Amino acid sequence: MRTTLCDTLGIEHPIVGFTPSEHVAAAISRAGGLGVLGCVRFNDPDDLDAALDWMDANTDGRPYGVDVVMPAKIPTEGAAVDLAELIPPEHRDFVHRTLDELGVPKLPAEEEQRDGVLGWLHSVARSHVDVALRHPVRLIANALGSPPVDVIEQAHEHDVLVAALAGKAEHAVRHVDNGVDIVVAQGHEAGGHTGEIATMVLVPEVVDAVGARAPVLAAGGIGSGRQAAAALALGAAGAWMGSYWLATTEYQQLPGNAVTQRALLEAGSSDTVRSRIYTGKPARLLKTRWTDAWTVPGAPDPLPMPLQNILVSEAHQRIMRAADPSVVSMPVGQIVGRMNQVRPVADVMADLLAELDATVDRLNGLR
Amino acid sequence: MRTTLCDTLGIEHPIVGFTPSEHVAAAISRAGGLGVLGCVRFNDPDDLDAALDWMDANTDGRPYGVDVVMPAKIPTEGAAVDLAELIPPEHRDFVHRTLDELGVPKLPAEEEQRDGVLGWLHSVARSHVDVALRHPVRLIANALGSPPVDVIEQAHEHDVLVAALAGKAEHAVRHVDNGVDIVVAQGHEAGGHTGEIATMVLVPEVVDAVGARAPVLAAGGIGSGRQAAAALALGAAGAWMGSYWLATTEYQQLPGNAVTQRALLEAGSSDTVRSRIYTGKPARLLKTRWTDAWTVPGAPDPLPMPLQNILVSEAHQRIMRAADPSVVSMPVGQIVGRMNQVRPVADVMADLLAELDATVDRLNGLR
Repeated sequence: MRTTLCDTLGIEHPIVGFTPSEHVAAAISRAGGLGVLGCVRFNDPDDLDAALDWMDANTDGRPYGVDVVMPAKIPTEGAAVDLAELIPPEHRDFVHRTLDELGVPKLPAEEEQRDGVLGWLHSVARSHVDVALRHPVRLIANALGSPPVDVIEQAHEHDVLVAALAGKAEHAVRHVDNGVDIVVAQGHEAGGHTGEIATMVLVPEVVDAVGARAPVLAAGGIGSGRQAAAALALGAAGAWMGSYWLATTEYQQLPGNAVTQRALLEAGSSDTVRSRIYTGKPARLLKTRWTDAWTVPGAPDPLPMPLQNILVSEAHQRIMRAADPSVVSMPVGQIVGRMNQVRPVADVMADLLAELDATVDRLNGLR
Repeated sequence: MRTTLCDTLGIEHPIVGFTPSEHVAAAISRAGGLGVLGCVRFNDPDDLDAALDWMDANTDGRPYGVDVVMPAKIPTEGAAVDLAELIPPEHRDFVHRTLDELGVPKLPAEEEQRDGVLGWLHSVARSHVDVALRHPVRLIANALGSPPVDVIEQAHEHDVLVAALAGKAEHAVRHVDNGVDIVVAQGHEAGGHTGEIATMVLVPEVVDAVGARAPVLAAGGIGSGRQAAAALALGAAGAWMGSYWLATTEYQQLPGNAVTQRALLEAGSSDTVRSRIYTGKPARLLKTRWTDAWTVPGAPDPLPMPLQNILVSEAHQRIMRAADPSVVSMPVGQIVGRMNQVRPVADVMADLLAELDATVDRLNGLR
């Protein structure tokens, strides 16, 4: 199956795979899709630079992309230490008390508390763009919608396309007005930041709203060829898949991911929750004892972005060390119910494409 | 497009249309789908009998179905007047105060307060089944999942098929174990009672879980041929559509519906809310000043089914008389964003089928 997107991006199959792992991203590109590496975890631009060097050496010259997290307006700035002063002590107390109650060990004295994820800061996201543009990236996607217009122009000067996530048709139109090249229509069932409108309703709305001005990728609920076929039927030029790659062999290659993966493999499609506890904006997460703790009476309301992520950064560090699947803090979509085995990316892609083809055959058989 | 469902139900197109209006239901059946009449509003079985007489005379001998609302277990019984005593006075006070604040006039002295909708009571739902089985219905659907096994057997003795709504794969399996013939996989984006899992994820899960034991209809988010094609791509044997028929000419024929329809035409896909205020169970409704009032701090938690519906029955009567689109109380799915014009059912069906066909052509063109 080829769509206009394949020509636009120079890829074989209309499958774009978002992932926090360069191992997964490279494998997706090698398998004929577009691997998109999430940059948010790279506090130090040099680390991202090194990861992209590795991507350049491991993608067989195939195109790949990066994903940044950049609010379009009112950037919140300041070093993590300054922002930390804005966090109410009751919130800190709640987090510490909750982790203790959940049996998550404190950090050992010799382990320094890290800064947490700073990619939510505008300046850090900008540094990601600067680094990416020194590499042969084909696409910069922004998880928070349209990036500022000057960033889009900067990308275009390097012949790099810009994609933006949208949870409403009117947002998609605004993105395209700003110069965004590709819209990712992210449905309610998706992992990470999501809106209220489900993929089935959102995708045709966005497609109709942007018309021929930009191809639309369907995101949310896609983890099989039937679902990819449904995405194309809805008018999408391809599928944007994030969660599903978390169940791959390649994903295990980053430290700590094996425990997260175990938790994901055991979860059903009902085991997610949409909550502001991860970043301050509504994001779909795996439902665990950690997310449950924020819903009991007396739990504080999550803070706005970027404070909430700073608040929970030590918690994430402790949780990662705890290696307990029942408390992991991980964005994932409802498709987690279909993530029941660990396979190499190439096998996932091959099965998905075969089922996509079989689905179109089946539809033809109904006429 | 023909699926196994077409043969099972004796219909031309794999489109099943749920509607509270016998005018709409008959028109759907005449257009080659299966019109399914919602029975819940018929407190008096004789009124349902008369409506089905009318259906018999106006469906040109085509098959049609009915939909009842029957909990599988622990039926709550008692006359409305007894149940009413279980409602806390604070809840009643809140409803009266809220309606006054919303500018919804009190009932005129000469208008008697009606009993509200009693179809939620097991005995009333049973009477609906008894009446339906005296008519040539092809299908009895149950909005609350599997009906009790003896009701399924009663239907089968009359050669009538039984469908049950399911929001989770494990529920669907239980329904089929009970003898249910057709599963309606109702996604989060659907109007009325819904679960958490979106159509895109739910449908393949249910299809895989029930296998060849029962055809699955996809419900939630379907109002165009692209969405119907997506439903079939996901593995459904057809589409179950409810909300979309509310924007038809035929729907206007019941008193009061024109105001409701006006509110629906103006709404976008973000203008729904999933709330327990309509029946006591989570149901997706049009977001209006009435639903907003239940979300302000200090508003009471909705009561369990069937008490909540009894609590709001006078409110619904007042709201209906008020004829103010900004306060209507109406179940509808996110597809409401696509309901922007009023057309005859036959036109809706024809357009949907043409787009469904064009969508499969388009998918073929991608190979």
